Amino acid sequence: MLRTNTCGELTEKDVGKVVTLCGWVNTVRNLGALVFIDLRDKYGITQLNIAPELYAKTSVKSEYCISCKGQVVLRSEPNNHIHTGKIEIKASEIVVFSKAETTPFEIDDNTNASEDTRLVYRYLDLRRPVMQKYLKIRSDINRYTREYLIDNGFQEVDTPTLIKSTPEGARDYLVPSRIYPGEFYALPQSPQLYKQLLMISGLDRYFQLAHCYRDEDQRADRQPEFMQIDVELSFVDREDVLNVIEGLLKNLFKKIDNVDLPDFYRMDYSTAIDKYGTDKPDMRFEMLLSNVDFLNESGFKAYEKKFVKALVVPNYADKVSRKNMDSDNLLAKKFRVFGVSHLKFTNGELTGSIVKNFKPEATERLVKELNLKENDLVILCADSKFNNASTALGALRSEYGEKLGLLRKDDYKPLFLINWPLFEREEDGHIESLSNPFTRPIDEDLHYLDTDPTKVRSTSYDTILNGVELSSGALRIHDASVQKKVFEILGLSENDINDRFGFLVKALQYGVPPEGGFGMGIERLAMEIAGTDNVRDVVAFPKNLKAFEPMSSCPSRVPTKDTDILGIKVVSDTDKGE
Amino acid sequence: MLRTNTCGELTEKDVGKVVTLCGWVNTVRNLGALVFIDLRDKYGITQLNIAPELYAKTSVKSEYCISCKGQVVLRSEPNNHIHTGKIEIKASEIVVFSKAETTPFEIDDNTNASEDTRLVYRYLDLRRPVMQKYLKIRSDINRYTREYLIDNGFQEVDTPTLIKSTPEGARDYLVPSRIYPGEFYALPQSPQLYKQLLMISGLDRYFQLAHCYRDEDQRADRQPEFMQIDVELSFVDREDVLNVIEGLLKNLFKKIDNVDLPDFYRMDYSTAIDKYGTDKPDMRFEMLLSNVDFLNESGFKAYEKKFVKALVVPNYADKVSRKNMDSDNLLAKKFRVFGVSHLKFTNGELTGSIVKNFKPEATERLVKELNLKENDLVILCADSKFNNASTALGALRSEYGEKLGLLRKDDYKPLFLINWPLFEREEDGHIESLSNPFTRPIDEDLHYLDTDPTKVRSTSYDTILNGVELSSGALRIHDASVQKKVFEILGLSENDINDRFGFLVKALQYGVPPEGGFGMGIERLAMEIAGTDNVRDVVAFPKNLKAFEPMSSCPSRVPTKDTDILGIKVVSDTDKGE
Repeated sequence: MLRTNTCGELTEKDVGKVVTLCGWVNTVRNLGALVFIDLRDKYGITQLNIAPELYAKTSVKSEYCISCKGQVVLRSEPNNHIHTGKIEIKASEIVVFSKAETTPFEIDDNTNASEDTRLVYRYLDLRRPVMQKYLKIRSDINRYTREYLIDNGFQEVDTPTLIKSTPEGARDYLVPSRIYPGEFYALPQSPQLYKQLLMISGLDRYFQLAHCYRDEDQRADRQPEFMQIDVELSFVDREDVLNVIEGLLKNLFKKIDNVDLPDFYRMDYSTAIDKYGTDKPDMRFEMLLSNVDFLNESGFKAYEKKFVKALVVPNYADKVSRKNMDSDNLLAKKFRVFGVSHLKFTNGELTGSIVKNFKPEATERLVKELNLKENDLVILCADSKFNNASTALGALRSEYGEKLGLLRKDDYKPLFLINWPLFEREEDGHIESLSNPFTRPIDEDLHYLDTDPTKVRSTSYDTILNGVELSSGALRIHDASVQKKVFEILGLSENDINDRFGFLVKALQYGVPPEGGFGMGIERLAMEIAGTDNVRDVVAFPKNLKAFEPMSSCPSRVPTKDTDILGIKVVSDTDKGE
Repeated sequence: MLRTNTCGELTEKDVGKVVTLCGWVNTVRNLGALVFIDLRDKYGITQLNIAPELYAKTSVKSEYCISCKGQVVLRSEPNNHIHTGKIEIKASEIVVFSKAETTPFEIDDNTNASEDTRLVYRYLDLRRPVMQKYLKIRSDINRYTREYLIDNGFQEVDTPTLIKSTPEGARDYLVPSRIYPGEFYALPQSPQLYKQLLMISGLDRYFQLAHCYRDEDQRADRQPEFMQIDVELSFVDREDVLNVIEGLLKNLFKKIDNVDLPDFYRMDYSTAIDKYGTDKPDMRFEMLLSNVDFLNESGFKAYEKKFVKALVVPNYADKVSRKNMDSDNLLAKKFRVFGVSHLKFTNGELTGSIVKNFKPEATERLVKELNLKENDLVILCADSKFNNASTALGALRSEYGEKLGLLRKDDYKPLFLINWPLFEREEDGHIESLSNPFTRPIDEDLHYLDTDPTKVRSTSYDTILNGVELSSGALRIHDASVQKKVFEILGLSENDINDRFGFLVKALQYGVPPEGGFGMGIERLAMEIAGTDNVRDVVAFPKNLKAFEPMSSCPSRVPTKDTDILGIKVVSDTDKGE
């Protein structure tokens, strides 16, 4: 090694030693009679004390990469904020490994460089301690996840990433084949089919930190490529899988963030929609939704034959402004409801523009059932669809939770959302699978497959932490007759089935274990642990929101000869300036 | 869990317990009065003892997936070959999870199913214990590699796999962009540039088990996608990196195969070519090549002005046949030499068709310098290029090593091949880099950059085990002036440089540490540890030799709408039947 020590380890115990440190020049303070350099590496900062003659020979500047040999001495003015603050290196020799131009932004946690600039110079952006911390959290997630799963008998398998394109779900990224011109591999959206095949192989307990790809229009928290903790295990029921997820997450939060997660709550999908107005309930605060369907017979025409839901925001009547109400309506309308109505309970009386439409006994009953207290704000929403009214108010619940400061960052309320419907009926009456067609129904609901499929609940489970979905999964069907019924309900022909997942269906003929598993997005988890809302903070070299990577300028055009041998031709192109 | 125990753990200590096992029916022996089933899971096999009435109710067959509840009892006829051989389960209840069709081949280590059939039914192929063993070795490599590197201060970083296409080396797999029609991402051949950027970022010690892709015509030991242990570290010299590789491999072989690798030998590239006739020397046996250049003045016209090399095969003169000699010549000619000549030393005399061309004193000197003993076979090769003569005889050395049974499987002779040339001069006189243009020259040779670049040795190193290359790597240039000279020698213009690695060259302006690293192919390593010559044995779901995956039939055609949105059009296609 070209160094004897790192920049993060020397203390007063080392005084007198002759050491060599390597790193980057963080700052130079030239006092004329003496020059101080803060030398930075991954592990910390150590002060170098350099005689002017020595400094003159090298004249290092910020971000030069250098080594410095010298004796560890006590500082005259210690810095108690850092581990190495009691000592400095009395430099006897300096070697400049390489010089540095002036960097386009300062290497400091507080930067006002634009994200675009930071992405172009990502290698400098990553020098900032906060980014190093994010990368460390992510690598710790990888490490402790594997350790936990291996300790629990799981075996890692690397599944292929050049796979068959299927018309399922989101768009595949395609990879043209040169040996078979005109044909394509696809990059996997997840290793779903392969992990089911591995269970059929008898692998028993599989895991992988899998590269996954989705060609979707970017959202703020998505990247075209992402990674997923992918797990599947055999001979289990639902609770066995949930225990793995719970154990894993408790372990990760403890080891990385020293947080003791509480035991995970189990909540029914129907409860979540009814009480929280979302399938990602945030249990850090109450303010649950109420059903006030009796208002559809209150005499108010607009509520007739509709589901009516109420959200009570405690002690907020005097704080709500006209502007608040307008933005509430805007938000609610995203959920396809007509709007919401705001009512105030002040001086023992409920007021608001729509109250006059209610029969007095309806108003009275509303006050009583909602158990209103002085200065409460009531928000009502009605729709012919229960889910619309609920989710609209659910979104407002989150808004007011934030406004009231109830979303405490150091509060963790994890839960499993279970008992999802297996199917949903589309507008046109046909039935769609809510997850994938291999998802196992709950045993006691099997009889509904023949009578009323939309009543069948699935074994699916989502892990929700503070309103964020961390993972999803399910048990899989292992019984051929159940699988056949599900395919029939979904209206899939023999041909459809063969086209879409032929090789898996074939495999199902050779002895399938009861099995289940889950996928957990690593970026999302890293964001939660790191406490950042920006997915690009937890990806070493991310794409921007338009799936473009500004540092290397990719994607890019390629020579025609490179597409010719693939049997494809570029027929349209675009201008990045657009 | 649906089981209380696995099929690999119950012994006489468990007699009397009531247990439930899950697994696949390995064999059924119906003795009429009693039925025995061998139940198999990942962990082993346990015998079930089933009353005929119970069996009749289920009539399970081979490869059915079932559970069995019952009491552990001692067997009347123990099987001492397996861990569970002393006991059996007196079955009280059997549940059939799923039935199985007759499998296309027996689930047994000894199979005569063709590899194509095995690939189509890969999920059944992977049920064979030998395949489970291979997968386990591979997962152990992943596990112990990460543990070793993390213990040694390395941090994992996941680098992007949708990257910029560059015209370097092997062919990239391309991924069309939908958002930028007509533009492409590439799948990485290695994370080379990213790991260098991470060192510039100050990450200090990086590792990744990286997915890599090369669109090459398949060779028996290659797959289109493969994985690589990818490592880079800062502030190091060559020995620091070699110590990481040596420590890692010793650790892996010990932990997985209980093999104590000896200390790794360091061999110069020039020695390898001179003595072993290859850059992948197999040190398990001697039979080194000799230089007998004096024969070019022996009077034999064909040897004039040529390099002449000799291989002595001890005590083989009476064994070599005309057929041997012909096949030796065929093999040698692959190395662009005219051929080889076989001489025998018998009864104190050297004989062979070409001996008559030598002056007697040359023959005498040959016998003396080669220190020939009775019945030795001498093979001579001459060429105007030293490397051709050497590598031709090197190939024969391996052949005869195998013939003589010298390639012992349980003998491990690891070495580092160092001091490679940095450049080589092509036929047309221009100079090419032997690795990549960022490879650092050996310091003491730097002066040759100005005078005779082909004399410059590089800091490259290959790890060779028993004639197989396990890893390669190098230190990287951190000095901008050296980098500039190398680019000039390679004749790269400013434009070339920018096109090919613009963003890395830009990054080199901001303070680069002395650094180095290596890449080690995981499949190759797994093959060595597993003792198989077939790369597909150590890949869960491999492609065949034509980059085709028979189970899912991929690559495949995709609907035109899927290519339309990418701005590409399929202009030629192929027929798999070709």
